[in-house]
Amino acid sequence: MSKFVHNIFAMKIKHLSLFILLVMNLPVVAQQSDSVTIKKISDEIMTNGKAYENLRYLCKQIGPRLSGSANAQKAVEATAKMLKEAGADTVYLQPCMVPHWVRGEKESGYIEVAGGTKYQLKLCALGNAVGTGKDGVKSSVIEVRSFKELDMLGEKILKGKIVFFNFPMNPSYIRTFEAYRESGSARRSGPTEAAKYGAIAVMVRSLASNIDEYPHTGATGYNDSFPKIPAVAMSTKDAEWLSLQLKKRMQLTAWFKTSCAMLADVPSFNVIGEIRGSEFPKEIITVGGHLDSWDLAEGAQDDGAGCVQSIEIIRALKASGIQPKRTVRAVMFMNEENGGRGGRAYRDEARKKKEQHIFALESDGGGFTPRGFSMGMKPEQQNKVNQWKPLFYNYGVYEFVSGGGGSDIEPLEETGVPVAELIPDSQRYFDQHHAANDTFESVSKRELHLGAVNMAALIWLVSEYGL
Amino acid sequence: MSKFVHNIFAMKIKHLSLFILLVMNLPVVAQQSDSVTIKKISDEIMTNGKAYENLRYLCKQIGPRLSGSANAQKAVEATAKMLKEAGADTVYLQPCMVPHWVRGEKESGYIEVAGGTKYQLKLCALGNAVGTGKDGVKSSVIEVRSFKELDMLGEKILKGKIVFFNFPMNPSYIRTFEAYRESGSARRSGPTEAAKYGAIAVMVRSLASNIDEYPHTGATGYNDSFPKIPAVAMSTKDAEWLSLQLKKRMQLTAWFKTSCAMLADVPSFNVIGEIRGSEFPKEIITVGGHLDSWDLAEGAQDDGAGCVQSIEIIRALKASGIQPKRTVRAVMFMNEENGGRGGRAYRDEARKKKEQHIFALESDGGGFTPRGFSMGMKPEQQNKVNQWKPLFYNYGVYEFVSGGGGSDIEPLEETGVPVAELIPDSQRYFDQHHAANDTFESVSKRELHLGAVNMAALIWLVSEYGL
Repeated sequence: MSKFVHNIFAMKIKHLSLFILLVMNLPVVAQQSDSVTIKKISDEIMTNGKAYENLRYLCKQIGPRLSGSANAQKAVEATAKMLKEAGADTVYLQPCMVPHWVRGEKESGYIEVAGGTKYQLKLCALGNAVGTGKDGVKSSVIEVRSFKELDMLGEKILKGKIVFFNFPMNPSYIRTFEAYRESGSARRSGPTEAAKYGAIAVMVRSLASNIDEYPHTGATGYNDSFPKIPAVAMSTKDAEWLSLQLKKRMQLTAWFKTSCAMLADVPSFNVIGEIRGSEFPKEIITVGGHLDSWDLAEGAQDDGAGCVQSIEIIRALKASGIQPKRTVRAVMFMNEENGGRGGRAYRDEARKKKEQHIFALESDGGGFTPRGFSMGMKPEQQNKVNQWKPLFYNYGVYEFVSGGGGSDIEPLEETGVPVAELIPDSQRYFDQHHAANDTFESVSKRELHLGAVNMAALIWLVSEYGL
Repeated sequence: MSKFVHNIFAMKIKHLSLFILLVMNLPVVAQQSDSVTIKKISDEIMTNGKAYENLRYLCKQIGPRLSGSANAQKAVEATAKMLKEAGADTVYLQPCMVPHWVRGEKESGYIEVAGGTKYQLKLCALGNAVGTGKDGVKSSVIEVRSFKELDMLGEKILKGKIVFFNFPMNPSYIRTFEAYRESGSARRSGPTEAAKYGAIAVMVRSLASNIDEYPHTGATGYNDSFPKIPAVAMSTKDAEWLSLQLKKRMQLTAWFKTSCAMLADVPSFNVIGEIRGSEFPKEIITVGGHLDSWDLAEGAQDDGAGCVQSIEIIRALKASGIQPKRTVRAVMFMNEENGGRGGRAYRDEARKKKEQHIFALESDGGGFTPRGFSMGMKPEQQNKVNQWKPLFYNYGVYEFVSGGGGSDIEPLEETGVPVAELIPDSQRYFDQHHAANDTFESVSKRELHLGAVNMAALIWLVSEYGL
């Protein structure tokens, strides 16, 4: 550790810049008082914030909360209570039907090597997948490293086999979501692609940026034109091992058993709490995360973080005595992980009630140090947000990029509502994503709260000036 | 988790900007080929980097390595070997004498509450402190929350007492080093300030940004004009508890025992490995971290990270076949924590040999995601570095601020050498700083390697263009 006096210098420089800007034009005068308000919100959150303790409750008192589960309902009730305690003017539940997928018994599987020795695999069923039945599936295992390779192998080689999709996340991509999107094709459409050629099951390398023993689940999808075949993810360590064995040109047999199943839809809810705007109460600003998590994990980073940050914005505005001109609404969306029903129900209800939505912000990239915002809006709106950029530098946020707003608010975006998503630091995210190590302990209180500070700043600016 | 297509958009925007810059002036043409070289270095580090495995060795095979200890010597030998394996043209040890402070037996201490009940404290001696002797120290405990308050209490109240410095780190500071610098006065000069008024010992609230059970050590200093009194740090949890008890106006007695002592200086080494510059071999660029750590911790973040990152720069340049024009020298400085002797020995030797040092960079803020660089150099040099800023944005580094370069290269800086320090994200750093939870497990491979990427980029740019 060293002296690090640079912050003092940096502050002086910033004050100087502010001064220069001040004498230049009027709109920046607004920015000076804005920076005072944002500092007030920041101090409230960094000093008295409740997001971390709310997250502890969600993770430790409730735990995994997959759509349709008893825990998901507990989380609905708990976050409604948190929103009331945060001081929301109104708190209500918005009904939506959700898929009800269950994992059933814990999965098991192995690779049979020479001499009949069985190497036990760390695996889990992919979300929404069908089960294998009580005998499991057993066959030769064929590794593929791209869909092109799969197509080249074709039915002749793949029929009756178990396909092992080994698509590692590319470590050279600095933003890990790029690697996730690229390699994620195996999980998302691997079962369908393999079924086209008569494969009887698939095993997918976990979408993880590290090498460890956790299998990472996540939603897969089927195409009704092809058989629905069982699908599991294996840990990256097992994937590396298996690939090495196959390189030795060994003929290997895999067996695994899953008892997951998709049951009938069940009723659930989005949870909503709002502060009514003082001047334009009909103009609604949404800020949210998703309340459901995978069943294997506490869902601390994905996405308990986004939920408690959204509640924190309500709390901090109330506690600081800052009254937004427009209505600020925190939404805990249900069923982001394996259906997206909450996001669509929210959009449908907004349409039905002819609500005027002027902006929506989501946090669904983990509770890590915030780095920026991704925006899905018209260029003139993005220009307006860009003018606010310097207000965020003191809080560590520099990246304002074009993109989208996150799955839950995508339905709103499709109706023309401007959206944004918080971009937290992504280096650690895929070490834990959809795996059992996505726990409360992995979240830093300061990082989580600093994310809420930046979200609150953006929400407050939109509430003050519109878009 | 969501789709995050924004990176693609961001890349397009960046390419467009690059294009616009390209048609504007010539110097930027250099930047385009520079960005290609930096990408090459980045790919090498992110894909094949050895820093993480080297850190594992330092932390798990060696462990704590306080100056003068047997482990410090093992770390000297291990990093010399790592530098050779990294491909350094020359590897050598630079002798320096270091202080040899030992903790002795594990400390113990308690607060005696009403009825004689003893509340055991989690505490540790401050580095460089004197011991209590075998009976320990026992007296009434007086809490102070500022030096002003200490002065107001004066000798009448403080004589013969144990002073409890309760200076919490201010949670509202976004850059945690600011809070550390501010509250750190208690640890650095508390023993002297209290001794002025006749106090017999001090207990300091740990410099930690969270509330937990780890005591955090760190160097204290004495002033020869006043008695040298024993000094310990207690966990923040204990400090909160003790403060609460004292608020209830309870008269409390504290006892603690330490058997630490400062022994005679012993010989040790800085470890140096370099790549000889192809065009200007006499112009030396230093990049380093400090090899010593506190005795309580593996010293993963502080500062094993900086050491293995510096070694990685040598490795990555060699492995990528990039020959620097100027000499690049990685230095593992000894004794940053409790003496700074390595840094001074390095400066003295440079003077003696009339070496031409053109730049020095340190990494001593942890192996967290890199956010920027703090610079201590002339304005015209800083302007030159600022022109390179856009080359770093793809690697997440945006903050280029005035400041300094870190303790180990401060002696060089004082002789007029331009310096800089990597600024990693600081939110988590003081949860672990100088405490037993500063372990290898707390370091993310990607974050550590991304820090090395940005350091390597800056080192390479200076090696190519000078300052």
